[in-house]
Amino acid sequence: MQEKRPLVHFITNVVIVNDCANVTLAAGASPIMADAAEEVGQVTGICSALVLNMGTISRRTALSMLLAGRAAKAAGHPVVLDPVGAGISDLRNDTLRQILRDVRPDVIKGNISEMRYLAEGTGTAQGVDAAAGELTDESNLERHARMAQTIAARQNCVAIITGPMDIVADADHAYAVSNGSPWMGRISGTGCMTAAVLGAYAGANPGDRLNASLAAMVVMGLAGERASARLPEGGGSGTYHMLLLDGVSTLDGAALDAGRRVRRLF
Amino acid sequence: MQEKRPLVHFITNVVIVNDCANVTLAAGASPIMADAAEEVGQVTGICSALVLNMGTISRRTALSMLLAGRAAKAAGHPVVLDPVGAGISDLRNDTLRQILRDVRPDVIKGNISEMRYLAEGTGTAQGVDAAAGELTDESNLERHARMAQTIAARQNCVAIITGPMDIVADADHAYAVSNGSPWMGRISGTGCMTAAVLGAYAGANPGDRLNASLAAMVVMGLAGERASARLPEGGGSGTYHMLLLDGVSTLDGAALDAGRRVRRLF
Amino acid sequence: MQEKRPLVHFITNVVIVNDCANVTLAAGASPIMADAAEEVGQVTGICSALVLNMGTISRRTALSMLLAGRAAKAAGHPVVLDPVGAGISDLRNDTLRQILRDVRPDVIKGNISEMRYLAEGTGTAQGVDAAAGELTDESNLERHARMAQTIAARQNCVAIITGPMDIVADADHAYAVSNGSPWMGRISGTGCMTAAVLGAYAGANPGDRLNASLAAMVVMGLAGERASARLPEGGGSGTYHMLLLDGVSTLDGAALDAGRRVRRLF
Repeated sequence: MQEKRPLVHFITNVVIVNDCANVTLAAGASPIMADAAEEVGQVTGICSALVLNMGTISRRTALSMLLAGRAAKAAGHPVVLDPVGAGISDLRNDTLRQILRDVRPDVIKGNISEMRYLAEGTGTAQGVDAAAGELTDESNLERHARMAQTIAARQNCVAIITGPMDIVADADHAYAVSNGSPWMGRISGTGCMTAAVLGAYAGANPGDRLNASLAAMVVMGLAGERASARLPEGGGSGTYHMLLLDGVSTLDGAALDAGRRVRRLF
Repeated sequence: MQEKRPLVHFITNVVIVNDCANVTLAAGASPIMADAAEEVGQVTGICSALVLNMGTISRRTALSMLLAGRAAKAAGHPVVLDPVGAGISDLRNDTLRQILRDVRPDVIKGNISEMRYLAEGTGTAQGVDAAAGELTDESNLERHARMAQTIAARQNCVAIITGPMDIVADADHAYAVSNGSPWMGRISGTGCMTAAVLGAYAGANPGDRLNASLAAMVVMGLAGERASARLPEGGGSGTYHMLLLDGVSTLDGAALDAGRRVRRLF
Repeated sequence: MQEKRPLVHFITNVVIVNDCANVTLAAGASPIMADAAEEVGQVTGICSALVLNMGTISRRTALSMLLAGRAAKAAGHPVVLDPVGAGISDLRNDTLRQILRDVRPDVIKGNISEMRYLAEGTGTAQGVDAAAGELTDESNLERHARMAQTIAARQNCVAIITGPMDIVADADHAYAVSNGSPWMGRISGTGCMTAAVLGAYAGANPGDRLNASLAAMVVMGLAGERASARLPEGGGSGTYHMLLLDGVSTLDGAALDAGRRVRRLF
């Protein structure tokens, strides 16, 4: 990553755009946020990867996502999609369908509610957070992994379901990543930052999107663990937020190898 | 709050949208930011409360606020309005008039300059911050409380004037809340975060908007006090910002009861 | 600054808008972010300075920049321009040309890639960060200072090239500012925050834009040094970000005088 320092183009939501820029730098890549339809084709042309995040989508940015997505794919750049709030409005659902069909993202990452909507066309939409009863644990791990594989096979992508246990699957493999901390759910944008790190790793390693995705998920999970280990007495979500970015920026290869908790499912 | 975990819809400004999301989570609720006219009606339908903040308004988001506001009221959801910058431009003043008339917010919270504009149609507008000479203290407390009550009676809402001493009034009651810290005025968005917490508490307790508002004001004020007590030697506004979010996320009911400084005025 | 507390109008990018608001407050001024074409003329009328930042420009905000820029100049307010990403798209290049011609900013600050584009109409555009091989050091200091002076003379402005060593020039003078820390390049938005502080100082001292600019560059550089001196063991970019804001908010005149490292070049 340090050698390649890939430039990552984001069309993302206004809530976490600063966190995405900072986590991308912390991961060793360089971010550029640009969402005007007039320029997204040119901008994505000088980048190595594209991240599309539907968090605060509008008709204007939906168009920019399609234009940038097609340009990135035409240039052979990996595209990461974060379908935030899939299932909660026609605008999101229509945009999602168009992106899936016309862009064909390389990596799709969502929470269980969003990914269920992708798999089944229905979902127990609860805003932008997953429904608590659905989160992945040992009891539903295989079922969720099959769901991820269904999406991966249909879309020819890496499909990732985030939760206390993350699932990373392509058509032929499925892994569970157990790194992480419950604190990650108590701040806004952890999922969006995860998509940013996925974009950075896909940009650095476009030839192996499955392993790039696994590495990115481990980075975020380990950063979350470090942050919770460093949280001082009396600390809360403000301090945790800052320590999470610290965690990404201070991880090195040795820490990644020592800390990764990845299990092959099938 | 923890049991209900209300989902709160925000149409808010881009400056503090991340802080609003994080403070809403810290307060025990769930945020969703969505401001596209095409979807705000659907989004607000799955929520428990709506927060409208005029901080970086445009014609586009003004329309979204009206659409979402009407949908929220039709569904019986409480609406909180933060009339940021009232009085400084025709765009803000026109939008404000339309929201007051067509949406009829349940809670309106502003600084003294903004609330004076609401009460009197004039104001000593100084950007988005209150004019220093006008801030509420013991000398003008009753006068400001009467102003809040005038707004509350006219709009059938809870009217809140923020400052070193906050006033919370409806048509029949007025309270002064003395919790808080001067540090809160040295960072951007404290007022917007206060509106977010008001939305969370209104969503959790829609049947008693006066007491929900008082609780929210105490939460923010106590969090501000905690943050200033925890500020280390040499700390400044960056650290304070983080500790303020910590303060909201670590408050519990016992600390609230012990720390609240609320006085009935009339 | 404390006495004047200038109100600074920003039309800036969504990535760092919160940091810009907070650093403006930390520097002792007051920010207002407003980018709707319908109101920018009125808003800038009540302010003391205008900061235009092209980071996430669109046709909509490009128009607002032109309207606000002309209104600010007509009112005699200083205008600071941060041409983020100059050279990377037609949208940015066209907007930049229009702002240079119609607004004539008083202070233009960019990294070496952006400023080379201004000087020569070409640039080794690498997203929004400067190309590493081009950064200013002793070997190219005079050449870069001449480039800044060329821009300053042509545009009748103060031209600033940021980097490990900052250059501040007008048509008749050029200075090198050596304050700063390598950590400043590891977080997003340091450059945008610098433009904010430039706006605050220009607003407080509109009659001497060269010395106002030098003071602002020293403030940011010293704040960066303080933040890196205070960074704890194990700290990373999240903590640094917070400490940088602390640094600006806790600087006083004595610290500025003692710490400034400014050298006259010619």
